[in-house]
Amino acid sequence: MEQNADITAAVLVIGDEILSGRTQDQNSTYIARYLAEIGVDLREVRVVPDIEAEIVAALDALRRRYTYVFTTGGIGPTHDDITADAVAKAFGVAIGEDERALAMLLERIPLEQLNPARRRMARIPAGATLIENAISKAPGFMIGNVVVMAGVPVIMQAMLDAAAVHIVKGAKVMVATIDAHDIPEGRYAADLEAIAKAHEKVTVGSYPSFSSAGVRNQIVLRSRDANELEKATQEARALIARLHGERTLI
Amino acid sequence: MEQNADITAAVLVIGDEILSGRTQDQNSTYIARYLAEIGVDLREVRVVPDIEAEIVAALDALRRRYTYVFTTGGIGPTHDDITADAVAKAFGVAIGEDERALAMLLERIPLEQLNPARRRMARIPAGATLIENAISKAPGFMIGNVVVMAGVPVIMQAMLDAAAVHIVKGAKVMVATIDAHDIPEGRYAADLEAIAKAHEKVTVGSYPSFSSAGVRNQIVLRSRDANELEKATQEARALIARLHGERTLI
Repeated sequence: MEQNADITAAVLVIGDEILSGRTQDQNSTYIARYLAEIGVDLREVRVVPDIEAEIVAALDALRRRYTYVFTTGGIGPTHDDITADAVAKAFGVAIGEDERALAMLLERIPLEQLNPARRRMARIPAGATLIENAISKAPGFMIGNVVVMAGVPVIMQAMLDAAAVHIVKGAKVMVATIDAHDIPEGRYAADLEAIAKAHEKVTVGSYPSFSSAGVRNQIVLRSRDANELEKATQEARALIARLHGERTLI
Repeated sequence: MEQNADITAAVLVIGDEILSGRTQDQNSTYIARYLAEIGVDLREVRVVPDIEAEIVAALDALRRRYTYVFTTGGIGPTHDDITADAVAKAFGVAIGEDERALAMLLERIPLEQLNPARRRMARIPAGATLIENAISKAPGFMIGNVVVMAGVPVIMQAMLDAAAVHIVKGAKVMVATIDAHDIPEGRYAADLEAIAKAHEKVTVGSYPSFSSAGVRNQIVLRSRDANELEKATQEARALIARLHGERTLI
């Protein structure tokens, strides 16, 4: 099967609670890993507050630039949930109560409890495809290249599964990780750069971590070309084995 | 003491490893909480890849818009560490080896081990103020309204402490949190909106969380006006107490 090489995406996290530090965003990491699995390159993440003009501006910048935009947050029943209206405004389409969405809400909420606040969750921009969620029933939606999901992680994850059927998959990036032990980055940086330059189809990163046990570095190589990845990985492994051996001898 | 009311900030996270999902960004939440403590409003977070043009474009957009920009990542010794050069380009200033930064590196690394890769960590844009870090010695820096920090959390945190002396503090936003128990958002949404509308100086948010124990909602009120915050909080508390009482009676 022919696969699309360059499917890109951005995540737009909508929520004051992330910017205030109250809540740690877990959704963008989850989406990043999910997209990596289906060969979609996540190129940007933005977090913006619950302000319509900010959401519209970010949506417009991102949807024009990337194949897909995945938004999280702001589709509940309270007054601070304004994502659906912002998306309608960004696309210049009408928004109103959607019969299909209303039917989904009624699966969970008896009609006599379906007050105006809850009915707001059935407001969907015209022309959107609904994204089901088995957990709370209130749907997300997809319009154009924008997938609109809830902010509660367990619901977002269910919606992402449901949305994935509408997403064009790319060729998966293959990854090799090399443990560089406690060898300082400064000792292998020049040789690693030479390896990266010799294999243009491979992205090479070096990632230090510090803990009470000391420094620990990892080299991560990524590519869609298996041969090039294998060559670069062998060279990097040999580099680290040599430096590690030198340290052991000291 | 007179305090500045409207000090704003953005965080720019630089790193392929975040976008690929390999690493969960912890720095932006840490910075968000830190800024909240010193009365600086975090208005936006962006995550961009290790690509110079992307870093420059994001820096330019953010530094013109907010009082401060805090960047994390990309200032180590390896070839994928390109933040300092991107910042120099964004500001249109020269970049070269900084004697002060070199002296800091020499506190940790003997001169004979200070190879070209390690010396790269002394490359600082002209006119920048250095930001010390007691952990690995390699400094961050501040130029104009941009604070450039490491990506490793423990080092970033040390740099943020060191940078804070250069940051103008604002009036701290006061926060009140109300446990809404398992009362569905849809039951209190209309009344909560009325409270939010009656207190324009108070930002009112409702945040659901789902766990195996069921749904749990919190109402969060924020304001720099203590009186208004107190009034709105009392009204919201009364609302929740009434609904909670009704449930208990059933």
